[in-house]
Parts: sequence; C-alpha cells; structure tokens
Amino acid sequence: MLHIDIEKQEGLSREQLDELQKMWARCASRVILATTLAGSGHPGGSLSSLHMLLVLYSVIRHNPQEPGWNGRDRLVISIGHVSPGVYSVLSEFGYFPEDRFLAEFRRAGSPFAGHVEHVVPGVEWNTGNLGQGLSVATGICMAQGFNKLPGKTICLMGDGEQQKGQIAEARRFATKYNQGQLIGIVDRNHLQIGGSTEGVMPVRVREEYEASGWNVVYVPDGNDFQIFFKALRRAWLHEELEPERPTLLDSRTVMGKGISFMENKAKYHGAPLSVDQARDALRELGQPPELVDEWMEKRRTHRIGPPYPSPEVHYPMINMGNPIEYPVGKKTDCRSAYGSALKDLAENNNRPESAPRIVGFSCDLEGSVKMQGFHQVSPGAFVEAGIQEHHAAACAGAMSREGLVVFFSTFGVFAAGETYNQHRLNDLNQTHLKIVSTHLGLDVGEDGPTHQCIDYIGLFSNLFGFSIFMPADPNQTDRIIRYVATHPGNVFVGMGRSKMPPITDETGRLFFDKGYVFKPGKADWLREGSQITFIGYGSVMSNAVKAAEMLKDEGISAGVLNMASIKPVDEVAITKAASIGPVITVEDHIAATGLGAIVGRIFARNAVAQRLITLGVTAYGSSGKPADLYRLQGLDAEGLVIAAQKALE
Amino acid sequence: MLHIDIEKQEGLSREQLDELQKMWARCASRVILATTLAGSGHPGGSLSSLHMLLVLYSVIRHNPQEPGWNGRDRLVISIGHVSPGVYSVLSEFGYFPEDRFLAEFRRAGSPFAGHVEHVVPGVEWNTGNLGQGLSVATGICMAQGFNKLPGKTICLMGDGEQQKGQIAEARRFATKYNQGQLIGIVDRNHLQIGGSTEGVMPVRVREEYEASGWNVVYVPDGNDFQIFFKALRRAWLHEELEPERPTLLDSRTVMGKGISFMENKAKYHGAPLSVDQARDALRELGQPPELVDEWMEKRRTHRIGPPYPSPEVHYPMINMGNPIEYPVGKKTDCRSAYGSALKDLAENNNRPESAPRIVGFSCDLEGSVKMQGFHQVSPGAFVEAGIQEHHAAACAGAMSREGLVVFFSTFGVFAAGETYNQHRLNDLNQTHLKIVSTHLGLDVGEDGPTHQCIDYIGLFSNLFGFSIFMPADPNQTDRIIRYVATHPGNVFVGMGRSKMPPITDETGRLFFDKGYVFKPGKADWLREGSQITFIGYGSVMSNAVKAAEMLKDEGISAGVLNMASIKPVDEVAITKAASIGPVITVEDHIAATGLGAIVGRIFARNAVAQRLITLGVTAYGSSGKPADLYRLQGLDAEGLVIAAQKALE
Repeated sequence: MLHIDIEKQEGLSREQLDELQKMWARCASRVILATTLAGSGHPGGSLSSLHMLLVLYSVIRHNPQEPGWNGRDRLVISIGHVSPGVYSVLSEFGYFPEDRFLAEFRRAGSPFAGHVEHVVPGVEWNTGNLGQGLSVATGICMAQGFNKLPGKTICLMGDGEQQKGQIAEARRFATKYNQGQLIGIVDRNHLQIGGSTEGVMPVRVREEYEASGWNVVYVPDGNDFQIFFKALRRAWLHEELEPERPTLLDSRTVMGKGISFMENKAKYHGAPLSVDQARDALRELGQPPELVDEWMEKRRTHRIGPPYPSPEVHYPMINMGNPIEYPVGKKTDCRSAYGSALKDLAENNNRPESAPRIVGFSCDLEGSVKMQGFHQVSPGAFVEAGIQEHHAAACAGAMSREGLVVFFSTFGVFAAGETYNQHRLNDLNQTHLKIVSTHLGLDVGEDGPTHQCIDYIGLFSNLFGFSIFMPADPNQTDRIIRYVATHPGNVFVGMGRSKMPPITDETGRLFFDKGYVFKPGKADWLREGSQITFIGYGSVMSNAVKAAEMLKDEGISAGVLNMASIKPVDEVAITKAASIGPVITVEDHIAATGLGAIVGRIFARNAVAQRLITLGVTAYGSSGKPADLYRLQGLDAEGLVIAAQKALE
Repeated sequence: MLHIDIEKQEGLSREQLDELQKMWARCASRVILATTLAGSGHPGGSLSSLHMLLVLYSVIRHNPQEPGWNGRDRLVISIGHVSPGVYSVLSEFGYFPEDRFLAEFRRAGSPFAGHVEHVVPGVEWNTGNLGQGLSVATGICMAQGFNKLPGKTICLMGDGEQQKGQIAEARRFATKYNQGQLIGIVDRNHLQIGGSTEGVMPVRVREEYEASGWNVVYVPDGNDFQIFFKALRRAWLHEELEPERPTLLDSRTVMGKGISFMENKAKYHGAPLSVDQARDALRELGQPPELVDEWMEKRRTHRIGPPYPSPEVHYPMINMGNPIEYPVGKKTDCRSAYGSALKDLAENNNRPESAPRIVGFSCDLEGSVKMQGFHQVSPGAFVEAGIQEHHAAACAGAMSREGLVVFFSTFGVFAAGETYNQHRLNDLNQTHLKIVSTHLGLDVGEDGPTHQCIDYIGLFSNLFGFSIFMPADPNQTDRIIRYVATHPGNVFVGMGRSKMPPITDETGRLFFDKGYVFKPGKADWLREGSQITFIGYGSVMSNAVKAAEMLKDEGISAGVLNMASIKPVDEVAITKAASIGPVITVEDHIAATGLGAIVGRIFARNAVAQRLITLGVTAYGSSGKPADLYRLQGLDAEGLVIAAQKALE
C-alpha cells in the first residue's frame, strides 16, 4: 500500500508518480466497468476526482485492516455519487477485493450502493444529498479536538454543491471554531447535471470561502498528481497560511478526465458508457477490453455477499447522576427540568481535566432551551452554532458517532420541520443524536403559527431509527433525559414552553417520584377508569387528568393513559384501553398525523370495533395564550369533558 | 400621509425630518405599549428598525386604501418579530387604526400576531422563521418582471439571520437573474437573542454580499432619517452602482434605539418592558405615561375584532389544452407524461408577446424531471435555481401568489423532506404552488436510500392547505397536471421514476381514457371484488392489478381501489371497501405514515371491525432495481397475493 509522508516529502518521487499512474489506470477501469455493468451511476465525476482520491488515500493515516482505527485522518466524501471512484480506490488500498464491488455495484441488498454508504469499509459517512459533507466534517473535526485525537479532517466536495446554503453555514462554523485541522477540497470541473456551473447557478467559490474567513489555495490542475500533492501539502502544513483557519483547495479538474470522449461532457455526470464505449475506454486505459464481457458474465452468476461487520459503536459510559424531584404543587417548565438534568449530567461526566463526554448544541436559543446551566458547568463542550440549523443538525449528528453524547436543542419548528432531512440522513448514518426540542405545539403561545410546531410526531414517525419521547411533566422529563443520555441511538424528546405542576396520583402524591424509571414502549396509567379512556402525552396531560376528575364528579369513570413513549408505542396498553370503552386521543399536535393516527392504525390492524375520537390541532393556531389556544381547539379540560360525554351518549 | 419622492428629492427637507420625528415618537410609543400590554414580544429590534421603516413607507408607492394595488412597491419584512414596529408604522400610514393593534397584539384570534402575518393589511408575507424573506423577495421581484410591473422589491432583514444559509442561496439567485430592482436592507445592530452577532456566529455581511455579486452600500447610521434616506436613494437610482445588480444596504443601527435604558441590550430582543419601565419609556418619548394604564384598561374590555377582508386571490385563467392519451401497452414514465402536459400547458398559455402565465422551477434536475419541453417552448418562464432547494421552494411559493401558476419540480427527497418547512411557510402564506415531485419511493432504484423518498404523505399530511395527488399511470398524470394548473391552491403531485404501461380495465381498454376527468377526493375502482380489496396509489398500482388477476385465477375475488387523491381522501370508497372484506393498503411509502395510517384512522373513527393490513416500506431500501426492492419488501404482485391469501385464511 502506497504511503507518502506528506510532512517529510516536498514533492512526489518519480517512483511514486509511476505507481500512482498505474493505480489510476486500474481504478479508472473499475469506474468504467462498475457503471457500465450496473447500467447506471456517475463515471464522469468519479474520474474528475480520481487523481485526488489516490493522492489523498496515499497521504492520510489510515488502516484498511482496521477501518475504525481512531488515530486515522478522516476523509468525508460529500459528493456521494462518486462512489465508483471511491470504491475503486478503497479496493486498491486493500479495504476489500475489487470483485464484490464490480459484481455488486448498485444491486439490491449489496453494500456497494449508488452513493457512498458507511457499511462499506473505509467510507466514513453516507452521502448522496449534496451540501452535507462539510457540516459532517466540521462535526468530526470538533470531536477529534474534544477527544484529543491528532487526525486531520478532509472533505471532498463538488463544485455544483457549493450552491447549497448549508455549506455557507458550515464554513462560518469552521472559522468560528478555529478548525485549522480541516481541509476542504472542491472538485472544480465546472459541470453539474444541468450543464456548466456558471449556467446553472454561478458561485464565486474562492471569494465566498475567503469572505467566510478561510485560507484559500487555488490548484490549477487537480488531475496532476504532483500539483495536487504540493497544494495539499501546503494546506496540511499551513505553509504561508493562517494555522488556526480551515483551508480550501479550489482544485481545477476535468469531468471524465482520462477518457478522451468523456472529458468535459456534463452528460457523463450521471450516465454510464455503453458496453462498446466501455471497451473503447478500457483500450485507452491500456486494459484488455474483454474485461467488460468477463465481468458481465461474473456479475450474472455472482450472489450478493454478506454484509461487512458493522462499524463499532463507541457509545461512552455515562453516569446518570441523581434524579431531581420536582415537588407537588411547584410549577416548573419541562425545559427547565431538561436544563437542570443536562447540567447535572455535565457535572457528573464532563471533567475539566479530560475530554468531555456530553456536548450541547444550541442555535442561538441557549436561554430559551435552558442550556445556560450546561454552558456554565462545561463551557468547552457547549457549542453555539448560530441561526444555522441545517448545518448544526448535520454537524451534531456526525459528532454523536464519535464517542460523545450530543444534545441538540432548539425550538420544535427548527428541530423537526426545518432540519427533518438532516435527521433523515443522521438516521441513515446510525448516529446517536439526542434532539431535545422545546417550544412544541400551541403551548408556544404568543409567537404564533410560524413558531408552533404541531407536526413533530408526523415527521419523526418517518425515521425508522428514531425514538420519540414526550414527557408529561418536569419529573418525567428529568428521568427521560437521563435515560437518553445513557443509551445509544437517535431520539427526539419534545416538550412545550409553559410551566406546569408535577402530575400526581389520585392520592395527591407525585406520580413520577424517585422510584419511577422510564421505559421506552411503556405507557403510564395516570388514572384508571371503567368507561372511557383519554390517551395523550406532553403538555395536555394535566388537562386530561383534570377532565377525568370533572367526569368523576358527574359519575363517569374515565381513565388517563400517558403515552410518554410515542415510538416505540405501548400497543398492549392501547389495546387494554380499547377493551374498556371509547378511546379519546388528546394531543397538542395535528390530530390526523400524531398519536391519533398511531392508535387508529393499531385499532384497524387488530380489527378493534371500538370508537376512537382523535382530538388535536385541526387548524393553524393563532398568536395567543396557550390556554386560549387550547380552548379554541377543544383541548382544554372542558373540551375533553364534552368529547367524553358525547362519546358515551 | 407622508410621501417622499425619492427620485426627485436628493435629501429630506426640514419639514419632512420634523414630521418623521413626530411619527417616530408615536410609533415608538406604540412599540412599547403593545409589547408591555401583551407581556411579550420584541421591542428592541422594532426600535432598531423603526427609523428605516418610516422612511421606507414614506418612499415606496403604496395605497393603504387598497393594500393589494398592483402598482405598489413591495416591502417584505424578513424579521417577522419586529411586528410591533411594522404594525405601528402601518397604523401611522392609515392601513388601520392603532386601537385594534394595541388592544389585540398577540391575543388569540386576532390578526395582530407576534410575527407579521399577511392577514394584517399592508403586510406582504408571513415571516417568523428567519432567513426566508430574501427568497420571497426575489420571487416577488421576478414576478414583477414577468408581469411587467414597475415596482421595486425591498427586503428588510436582520443581521442575526444573515447566518442562515438560505440567504446565500437567495443572493446568488438575485444576481443570476439580474434583479436590479431588488434592494436588501440589513438592520445591523450586532445583537441577536444569544448576545453579540460576533459572539454567536460571525458573518462578514458586506464581504459575503460582494462575493455573491451584489452592490453593497454601507449606511453608517440607519437610525438617522437623512443618512438612511440618502443611502436608500443611491440604491433606488443605482447611483455609482451596477444597475443590473441587486443592492444591499448594510445599515448600522442600535438595538432599542431611542429609549436610553434599552439601547444596545440584547435582552430586549425578545422581552417587553415592565409597566413601570414602559411609563419611563413613554416619558422619554414625550408621551403621557398614563397611556400605559389607559390602554391596559381598554385592552381588558376590548373584544377581538373581525378578520380583515382576505387579500384577493389573483389566480390566472388557464387554458387546460388537450389531454394526451397514452395508448394501451405503450410504456411511459409518469414524469414524461408530466413533462408533456406541462409543455402543452405552456404552448396554450405562455404567448411570447405577453407575460407568461405558467412558470417552471427546476433545481439542477431539468432533464430528470422532464422540464426540457417546457423550457424549450417557454424559455423566459423557465427558472433554474440551482442546487438551492430551500431558496427555490420559498421563492417559487412567493411567485405563485403573484398571478402566476408556478410548477416546482425536483426529486422527492428535495421536494418533500429537504424543503418541508419552506412549504409549511408557503401553506401559512396561502400560496398556490404546484409541487410536482418525481423520483418517489423505492422506484428511484439504484440511487439508493438517500434518494428514495418514502415519507411524502407522512410529511404533506401535516400541511392543512396542501392537497396530495398520486397518479397511477401516464394518463392519470396528464389529467391531474391539467387539473392542478387550472385550480388555485397548494398541491403536491408525486410520481416514481420508472416507465409503466397505462392501466386498463377488465376488458383491456384504457381505464383513464379521454373521457376521464380527475376529481379530488374521488377514488377509482380499477377492479371490483367481493372478498378483499387492495387500496393503493402510484407506482405500485400495476402490481395490485396483477395481484388481483392472479388471485382471480385462484378463485379469489379481489377489488383494486386506486387512491389518486390522498388528500382529500375518498372516505366513502374506503368505507365501501371495508364493508366487502379485509382491506390491504399497498404503497411505495412507509407503511406506518402513509395511506395505511389514513385508512386506519378512518376505520377507527368509524369503529369499523374489519381487518386492515398495511403493506409498504418497513426499512430503508438499498440501491437496486425497483422490482428487486419491491420484492424484498413484499410489494410485488406475488407479495400482495400472499398477503391477501393470509388475510382470508
């Protein structure tokens, strides 16, 4: 395996250049073969990047036998569609034999997908949607700093994706946090799917990075090993560059480089060569053209191999601290209970003398999301990402896979709606992000409908790997936060804005007392009832309890089931409720897409002939006091009482 | 009403300055009163912007008696939280009396919400979530051009929101499209919720706008009427500026300007004064401090007034053209049928000699979403927004309220997941956007899970005003596209990627023939059955029909119900299906959040004791051929047959 010591060597030797050239010819053939065999894929950009990929993997510290070795430098491929180039080079460096890649590329059930995925050894991060990689790289780079690891973080990007606003956010973040260990590379071939980058949407790449405070190095020919190596070395060693700043290599390349009839053709961004063309291309590369036919045959008979071993999960041991009890009668907002639990977790786990274990991300809402306590206790682990939610969501997600427990907190409309797609990508990357979202629902009140997030369940229900937890009061919040901190996986924890008294049982004692332990998939019977059941969660639970008490006065026995774990959901408890009598779901969420929809599907799948009434938000709320907004949508205790009476008529 | 002729006057006269000063004192008192009375709100930024707002409304052409007058200049308030400042100034200019604003600000049911909303006369666009206004302004500016209207478009932004990446996208778009009529203003008070903008996330505002190709004018004191007016005049007339380029006024201001104890305090970004402080502030403004108490009393007894008349909808008359028939047996992809219908609509409605009526937006995927025909027929109305989906979604939404029918087309993962929040804001703004999304579901195939959108129903079901239509074949696609073009409102039309034969009836004739008319809320019985029913939509319908035919051979009578209108849904047809026998929902979508959830809720709400089997996507797909991916998830015809047999056991 070629390894070039970039710190010692000022330039590549003749031998190294020869070897790189040979490797390049082999890899270029694989690019052609893989895409032609699959009948789809992106050969043009793969060839555009290939010289750089070969130099990069020759330079970075890495270990194909131990892809997860934590001393490695990180190379994030933001342009996931150059997977043929990346897989070709990874096989060249011994991560896996070329056979599986060539025989399986883009086939159902194979790890060798159309866009790079981390199930392939050597791939750091799944990409495909553009504009994500730089945010991910800044997250990894920051984690390397926290974890006191020496590696560089390098991000290979396209020039088309420079249009994406998220990259502007990532740039500023890297500058703010002095990420001198970060190197961004733009594969500047001036072509994207729609034609020339200038025709589609001009971006002055260098000017923009300079305006964001980056070092910028222009690479006049990124398809020349020597020229690219020297530029990379300059960035690596910060020669004549600000050492505390991230560096961009703006690297001029040619789409389809190396195959005469592919060069500079936008068409080959996303289209493979025909079989005949592939034979011609192999001839140009000095390879036997029959390879196409041989591989076609091999591919026909090949059976998809087993998955590669999953990358190890480095989830740290967390001391859950001591639960805080919020006494009967004392009103507290769940977000303050979150803030206190997070602070306590920081005190128990982030020692000033060692790397932090818990990191907190805010997007200019530190006070509102109650992260000040955490910030105070653990200033070095508090990350203020600014009003840059897209970047922050991807960056925090990436960091959460680096042995750190990452809390990402902002208002619901930003944590759920605005960054939904970033969390989808986090989910695909099997991160361990703890989204704790405050200001959900009509409970946001006076800030009005743009700020009232009423779709969080409707959104996060779409992400297979995410759990959804909705505490009903400050005590349950405290316990849920400690639970999620101590368990791997992605989770959305949601809460409203207002203060509320802790929930009590019939005897007036705390329901979620010191002995309470939160369990995913386990609902809480706040009140038992024999005629009808309210099922709800979060900020409307006190209304449901009040309604049950009002109904009791009228001689109606109503149960109250608190569904703090929305995903996984407690199907047993729901079925039990259905066996008692009509069920009324209550939520500060759109009725059609929240708990009501979940319960409805459970009823229907089990052919339960029981009435379900789904109460919730049925039109955008206005700006006003939460109690007024609840009343207007029939979600106050009186509204619930009326609904129950009607259901029992 | 003060009107200053900015083209004729080089500076403000003494009288004008005096009048502005008086207006300012009245407006500043209203800002203080409204926020203190409401007990919440954003007085600091309102005062920061107030001088500029007064100059702007004195300069722009507008008519408070006819807020929708189409000769007006447009002022988009991107910082929706300065609503107290905006409402104060609008009442000063006679849009409405101050009484309702002061008595109703931030109260449930009132139009005077915490962030500006267009239900208030004079407000162009609802904002609140930051970073949206510039995209909206570029959309309005472009529409003004299409509609040959002379007005300027001005966008007032905050400096905190400059962190948002979407603004970088909007900047480039404005430059690409030579929006010399666009003026952006940054209220540069250097404070945001979290403290100084430099501390939270530094942005070199002027350098970034210059790097994007804008004219940039620095305004050393935006709280000085004369200085700001002169800078605005320079931008307005392009004095020593490139006339084809948009212009930024980087306007240095002071948070809380004019009230000694509020100035430069980040705290007052989002916190009102106490009653005592408000009295002090009024004293400073030369107003009677008792006003606070008087208004508190008035507010106590005030009843929320009626809504203002809705702004008129200018939805153009569209000639729907002649439906195209795709004959039996000829495979066509729905996206090509979309492209052909769109081209036909352009030919029938966009005349070279007049303003276009139909506009098409692409995000670097013109070929994939089949917009080339439209582009060719109507090059001036084809908008290529680049890989800038956030911007494009907001910009296209804004344009759709300007008397143009706007089609926004990209892959599902960008049209649904990535831009969900932009569409939520479009929905709040009652736009008429036609999202036509190609490449939905596992049908995307080899591009893999990052590109497989399996959550579009789960997402768009959350937006109250959006319809969701899913054509089953090219003929139905043609008819749905013509339907949505000719009807106002927001809609999501979705389709897969693959070619398919048109759907036929039992006799082999086209099901969706020339006589077919699409009706929202009306499902199609593709096959009648007496034992069990498949309900589905889109690209899996041919599998459902095939399964019904296979079951027939086994003596099982299965019906097939095509739910092309997902929202509104055909509850009658679903109830009928439930009365026949078990129901199997089939979809290229997550089973838990798509049609299965909708049908489940309908069953449960009607206490239907019938079995529901919800088939769909239950794990992220891999990269592979759609047929393979369907088979792996049990969505091929054989899988459906097995599910039906099991349900009938």
